[in-house]
Amino acid sequence: MKTEDLRYEADGLAMIGQLTWDETAGGPRPGVLVFPEAFGLGEHAMEKAERLTRELGYAALACDLHGERKVISDLAQVMPLLGPLRSDAAKVRARTGNALAALAARPQVDAARIAAIGFCFGGTMSFELALSGADIRAAVGFHSGLAVTSPGDAKEIKGKVMALLGADDPGIPPDQRAAFEATMREGGVDWQMTLYGGVVHSYTNKEADKLGRPEFARYDAAADRRSWKQMSDLFAEVMA
Amino acid sequence: MKTEDLRYEADGLAMIGQLTWDETAGGPRPGVLVFPEAFGLGEHAMEKAERLTRELGYAALACDLHGERKVISDLAQVMPLLGPLRSDAAKVRARTGNALAALAARPQVDAARIAAIGFCFGGTMSFELALSGADIRAAVGFHSGLAVTSPGDAKEIKGKVMALLGADDPGIPPDQRAAFEATMREGGVDWQMTLYGGVVHSYTNKEADKLGRPEFARYDAAADRRSWKQMSDLFAEVMA
Repeated sequence: MKTEDLRYEADGLAMIGQLTWDETAGGPRPGVLVFPEAFGLGEHAMEKAERLTRELGYAALACDLHGERKVISDLAQVMPLLGPLRSDAAKVRARTGNALAALAARPQVDAARIAAIGFCFGGTMSFELALSGADIRAAVGFHSGLAVTSPGDAKEIKGKVMALLGADDPGIPPDQRAAFEATMREGGVDWQMTLYGGVVHSYTNKEADKLGRPEFARYDAAADRRSWKQMSDLFAEVMA
Repeated sequence: MKTEDLRYEADGLAMIGQLTWDETAGGPRPGVLVFPEAFGLGEHAMEKAERLTRELGYAALACDLHGERKVISDLAQVMPLLGPLRSDAAKVRARTGNALAALAARPQVDAARIAAIGFCFGGTMSFELALSGADIRAAVGFHSGLAVTSPGDAKEIKGKVMALLGADDPGIPPDQRAAFEATMREGGVDWQMTLYGGVVHSYTNKEADKLGRPEFARYDAAADRRSWKQMSDLFAEVMA
């Protein structure tokens, strides 16, 4: 597996993503964008991107979020940075769309077969990319917030949408799920949502336990494994 | 693949199920109960049982519902027969529990590794079997009603629960999903629920289109394939 930094500009920021691909496989292969949790691009999203390459053979771009690959561990510092991305479609679409352009331009990648995944706010970003009408095969969110900037754009979605949620995630309450469901329905989207019982936020991330708030964020091995399988099954369907 | 009729008594009825198994595989293998749609045991559930044997190697019992393998095609005749099963835990548990006992007693079957699936009201029956405290590894419902006789018994559930639903199924509205979710949560169950967007009732059944009520019941090839995969993934997890 090869790994290199991939620099691109997005929303006025100097982004440093990490691209991984299997150099032993010939020809352009499908690509996957991986949007990290709200803290920024760290080990968690890079590991997921590496798994996409190692296990499934895709080229994967772990995307920068805050520029210069900054990781901000203090949630109080992160929240003000997310605000504009939650309300301004143009801003979040610049960050996701430029990541897509950077990945699609790589010779290792088949630009016609790209999907996006993301974790926490990164999952929301994958949905935002889909809402922009981008030419992606699928958008998958793991413990992803479902409040999007422009629900009225759901009819622009070209790929399939999958939300993989802890049923007890305090950050994604039932009314948010219901609103997302209505959005997808009105847009005529091919969408799926899975709820994992007894599971809360950040269930894919072993580091979550260090927060010390298990009622809010907690690693869950079964949900981690099951959600990865569901994503893999969807990719098998759409990347062919 | 071998097929034979399996007769058992349940709730005062003479049941004629259909057992399938792979006679070329040695030793007791996992078993799966397949509960049919409300009309009774017909081709649809028998085909699913055969697939469980052919594709996954399980012994499978397609279960009779109305006795003597009666199929009742008129919904107006079926509904009065379901009424007592929807309200009387003892009745529905007799029908499901005796099917389980009949399957578990077969020498081809490893009685410690049995799961139940069902379609429409048959999915509800698989959940009822789980609620009875039966020793099953999993209960999976496809377009299954979620209203159960004894939600307070959820703490008795020993296996994992999976509900695979059309998001637009008029028979399984959001408030029924919410009640099921609360039931599972209170019982501390390992449960999952997947919603398939744009999908209604009977999505696994090609015969559904003959009803001529596509807003209520309609075959959906994608949801059929995806839900089968999810069930298979769960079985791979629990039958090991």
